[in-house]
Amino acid sequence: MARRRPGQSAIVTQRDEEDQVEILSGVFEGHSTGTPIALLIRNQDAKSKDYGHIADKFRPSHADFTYFAKYGLRDYRGGGRSSARETAARVAAGAIAKLLLQPLGLRIQAYVSQVGDLALTQSYSELDLRLTESNPVRCPDPLRAAEMEALIRQVRKEGDTIGGVVSALIQNVPAGWGEPVFDKLHAELGKAMLSINAVKGFEYGSGFAGVSMRGSAHNDLLYSEGTKAQTRTNYSGGIQGGISNGEDIYFRVAFKPVATLMRDQESLNEKGESVTVSGKGRHDPCVVPRAVPIVEAMAALVLADFYLRQQARHRENLTIFDLSKNKHA
Amino acid sequence: MARRRPGQSAIVTQRDEEDQVEILSGVFEGHSTGTPIALLIRNQDAKSKDYGHIADKFRPSHADFTYFAKYGLRDYRGGGRSSARETAARVAAGAIAKLLLQPLGLRIQAYVSQVGDLALTQSYSELDLRLTESNPVRCPDPLRAAEMEALIRQVRKEGDTIGGVVSALIQNVPAGWGEPVFDKLHAELGKAMLSINAVKGFEYGSGFAGVSMRGSAHNDLLYSEGTKAQTRTNYSGGIQGGISNGEDIYFRVAFKPVATLMRDQESLNEKGESVTVSGKGRHDPCVVPRAVPIVEAMAALVLADFYLRQQARHRENLTIFDLSKNKHA
Amino acid sequence: MARRRPGQSAIVTQRDEEDQVEILSGVFEGHSTGTPIALLIRNQDAKSKDYGHIADKFRPSHADFTYFAKYGLRDYRGGGRSSARETAARVAAGAIAKLLLQPLGLRIQAYVSQVGDLALTQSYSELDLRLTESNPVRCPDPLRAAEMEALIRQVRKEGDTIGGVVSALIQNVPAGWGEPVFDKLHAELGKAMLSINAVKGFEYGSGFAGVSMRGSAHNDLLYSEGTKAQTRTNYSGGIQGGISNGEDIYFRVAFKPVATLMRDQESLNEKGESVTVSGKGRHDPCVVPRAVPIVEAMAALVLADFYLRQQARHRENLTIFDLSKNKHA
Amino acid sequence: MARRRPGQSAIVTQRDEEDQVEILSGVFEGHSTGTPIALLIRNQDAKSKDYGHIADKFRPSHADFTYFAKYGLRDYRGGGRSSARETAARVAAGAIAKLLLQPLGLRIQAYVSQVGDLALTQSYSELDLRLTESNPVRCPDPLRAAEMEALIRQVRKEGDTIGGVVSALIQNVPAGWGEPVFDKLHAELGKAMLSINAVKGFEYGSGFAGVSMRGSAHNDLLYSEGTKAQTRTNYSGGIQGGISNGEDIYFRVAFKPVATLMRDQESLNEKGESVTVSGKGRHDPCVVPRAVPIVEAMAALVLADFYLRQQARHRENLTIFDLSKNKHA
Repeated sequence: MARRRPGQSAIVTQRDEEDQVEILSGVFEGHSTGTPIALLIRNQDAKSKDYGHIADKFRPSHADFTYFAKYGLRDYRGGGRSSARETAARVAAGAIAKLLLQPLGLRIQAYVSQVGDLALTQSYSELDLRLTESNPVRCPDPLRAAEMEALIRQVRKEGDTIGGVVSALIQNVPAGWGEPVFDKLHAELGKAMLSINAVKGFEYGSGFAGVSMRGSAHNDLLYSEGTKAQTRTNYSGGIQGGISNGEDIYFRVAFKPVATLMRDQESLNEKGESVTVSGKGRHDPCVVPRAVPIVEAMAALVLADFYLRQQARHRENLTIFDLSKNKHA
Repeated sequence: MARRRPGQSAIVTQRDEEDQVEILSGVFEGHSTGTPIALLIRNQDAKSKDYGHIADKFRPSHADFTYFAKYGLRDYRGGGRSSARETAARVAAGAIAKLLLQPLGLRIQAYVSQVGDLALTQSYSELDLRLTESNPVRCPDPLRAAEMEALIRQVRKEGDTIGGVVSALIQNVPAGWGEPVFDKLHAELGKAMLSINAVKGFEYGSGFAGVSMRGSAHNDLLYSEGTKAQTRTNYSGGIQGGISNGEDIYFRVAFKPVATLMRDQESLNEKGESVTVSGKGRHDPCVVPRAVPIVEAMAALVLADFYLRQQARHRENLTIFDLSKNKHA
Repeated sequence: MARRRPGQSAIVTQRDEEDQVEILSGVFEGHSTGTPIALLIRNQDAKSKDYGHIADKFRPSHADFTYFAKYGLRDYRGGGRSSARETAARVAAGAIAKLLLQPLGLRIQAYVSQVGDLALTQSYSELDLRLTESNPVRCPDPLRAAEMEALIRQVRKEGDTIGGVVSALIQNVPAGWGEPVFDKLHAELGKAMLSINAVKGFEYGSGFAGVSMRGSAHNDLLYSEGTKAQTRTNYSGGIQGGISNGEDIYFRVAFKPVATLMRDQESLNEKGESVTVSGKGRHDPCVVPRAVPIVEAMAALVLADFYLRQQARHRENLTIFDLSKNKHA
Repeated sequence: MARRRPGQSAIVTQRDEEDQVEILSGVFEGHSTGTPIALLIRNQDAKSKDYGHIADKFRPSHADFTYFAKYGLRDYRGGGRSSARETAARVAAGAIAKLLLQPLGLRIQAYVSQVGDLALTQSYSELDLRLTESNPVRCPDPLRAAEMEALIRQVRKEGDTIGGVVSALIQNVPAGWGEPVFDKLHAELGKAMLSINAVKGFEYGSGFAGVSMRGSAHNDLLYSEGTKAQTRTNYSGGIQGGISNGEDIYFRVAFKPVATLMRDQESLNEKGESVTVSGKGRHDPCVVPRAVPIVEAMAALVLADFYLRQQARHRENLTIFDLSKNKHA
């Protein structure tokens, strides 16, 4: 939880949220019982009066207007469920999912690979991901991280915000996870990432760049190393036909610039009147450093589901009819 | 169905599939009855012997290996369910979804915006989408389309393949569709697109490019036109907080180069032995022209679901407790 | 909640549970917001030491053994999730469902119709259901109720328990609710009732007694009263083919005698050793008086679901093909 | 399929349906591939003109009126989806489920235990279930079966119909199957049975009769036989707290008298006018003999689901926190 928490460094929101998690059910004497594990994180630092200035105004590019259009009523305190605060629950749940996956040897690592125009040019295999936590940006290239941090500080000084990209790597997923049609492994990963606040895009393996490649360069040729099937390249991103092939799974997630600005903006109120929304409060100039653990948590939840789905399978193909007995079946 | 069908032009596979759809249930005297509408499309042109040369070999970057790893058995005839042939069913189902959405005024239009490195630079509003069907590439810019077609012909001549991008536009979705947390409208659209064969990426609104923008430029300011709330820009892509805001919804879908090549490739067989997979059969050098109706169909299916979910809502907020009666609730 | 609560009369358990409900989410300034309404009821009166005597023993005809077999671990304090305490959450959720159904005019009333061998012989239409709450048994026939109460007191004196039947009546459900195949209205009602602790049977309309009838007597003949279709009898119990027909829905639910006795019983412990389970604690000699609100709550939850499913329907049949245009479709 | 099929004996409908099953997908060279197994049974013997006399009339106690109320349109040929013909698909699917369960040693046997007032008084353990198929009624007591058959013939002669009860026994289900709250094993079995046409009630274990018992007689005391936990009685019907305990699972299903009579009946047409519905066609005077395989099939489908759900479980309890490390967790 600590990595998602506000106030952890100078480049993120200074809101003071303790993110105290209470386990309501499902754990007895330190062990899971099979009962759903309900986790409760109360909002400690939210004061309704802090939101009085936007109580009836729609903040641009927030969910204020769409919630009002859908529900006819909205909890204006921080956007209610549309608040990035909601992701605290995802990180807490992801921690349980990681406990489930750990004994299988799965490793899930996310890191910041772009802030504004400052992008890493290395692939994950050329980086030392152990350095991710060495700087507040969570970028494993310390030099690039320093530039990113300077950019974020500059943007904040201007009362503005900026977007970024989080990259993720999942290792040691056995071949065979994922479903073949609608619930493809990368489709569920994509949906999970797109469900995170501020996400605008998802690509895995070669992604959008793969579009320009020829098939002869893009195809991952198979060879064996001992008894294990391997691929010479990994443009597939560890997933073929929606099912893991045992290679590294990697993907990238695009985050838009944060919508809350320390500036005045033109907007409407609930009556449809023109109003000015003023910047106020404590917000992030760039969301990606805090998004790293959220991406990891969502990946862990998706993988935990596929692990259990894989467990659910009957282990043998059924003999529906015996061809030796029935020539004309 | 005709737009997805093979053999429709010189730049797609010449496989002869009639895609005859039989309605098995749910329609009586021309009208839907409420019973699920089951559609059956038989494979007419698949000959098992055509696949003999790959019966025990894994084609690189196909789902052959992963299906075998998952199920311990696979139907090698064209990849079974992993065949692009499976998308015929999506287009057929999408046609029904479109019937449902038509009376609401929704319009769904997809088009090819990139083949290899040849990309459209215009946004959808600068294009005349009525020209999409004027050329076999399904690109609404006829000059660019001609270049794309030439590239596809060149690639085919080399026995190779190439990727592309399909862009899509959805208009007249009312504000309020979509769910606020995991089933966000764009998350479900993304999952649906990523579930299509060969898709490697999805972005909506400003997408990956939005990462480099400042919030002050990216935010879509609200104003009213008559009684209707509008936004001055639409980087949000018509969706805020996972819920439609009434503006145009647009997104882009990346397709990798087709994995089936008319070339010899290194691979493994089911015993793990090194083998050569030879190119043979009738395949597309580039999938995007035929992917256009598939993208539209999947969009229609997702929107039909959200339309019905929106219908399901109780129309009024419940009064859970009356504050006037209970000061300490 | 008060009707399910322990300690409400002399014939139910004297355990002191306040059943304080905290609304965690989904309500803002007294109104539902569209966010899921999370309700929290903490166990106030459960002391782990009260359960020390059964910590490793399986109480006969409880879920102790089956939970242990399934999960390899169990929370022995009152059976954990298998405790009848779990039904407090059902009643709380049912109260919200009732708020949803109230404006539609739906009325859900349950009552005790049998305790041991003492059964009401009247149908619901011959009873004054307003008398249900006039006695602690919740039986609308006061004379029979007095006999039932005496029986329950006698059974308790013997340290024993006894079963009963709860009958229920649902009025003003419009014709058309329910799904036609697996999710039939009565099938979902049945599942919901069978999911309540201690329930052993469910029947609706003519039920098991209808087995002995001839079709000519059992069929509910249709006639019109003004513009409304009516049936002369109602052996169908208001549901035909899984879908409501606008008549009264009624059903009966069988509850077994409570498994917790104030007697010594032969059993096993977690090591498989023979042990004696002694009666101790505060328990109901007969569960049906307190089950009445639980049956109502589960009925309300099922009906709220079907109400929303019915809302979700597209209002018109689709014209799949126009017969006038295509003679050979 | 043969046991459900019409025309198999003198006491069931003489409609000639071949029930030819075509396997559309999921089977390759005699084995299941992991693809859903789609089975198609076409109506061979349904002639639209046979139903002309009821095209706009509601048959009493059929689903004609409720389908019309729900969908505004109905396929009047045999009731469309509400036809008992729909159960052919259940039996076909159940045959696949049985293939899945067979290697686990599960045994599912159903039989007729009551027709009209003629009821078996023996429990399943006092019957020789191998005799079930020795007579057209499918009652394992040949003497009682003869009486039942005579009653059915008599009822048919009168142009009338009669109800019955199907009992079922499931053996060798391991302890631990079923879910603890809403999806209790008996709740899902109950729902599945109640979803069968004409079913009015479901009870398991002691059922409605258990209501009159004292807890001291009803509780199933535990003892060990070797290493296996056993119960001295089995009023629980093999299920405690919604989870199997390894004992025999048994239940009873009530079927109403068939609604189609060879008599004139008062009713309404789609315009709300009074009409007479005349008996015509080929129908069963009593449904239970043909319902036996349907009950077995639905039980097999439910158990197959629970088998897979049980497979899905992570095999170990998670250590959520280590008490030895954290005294104040």
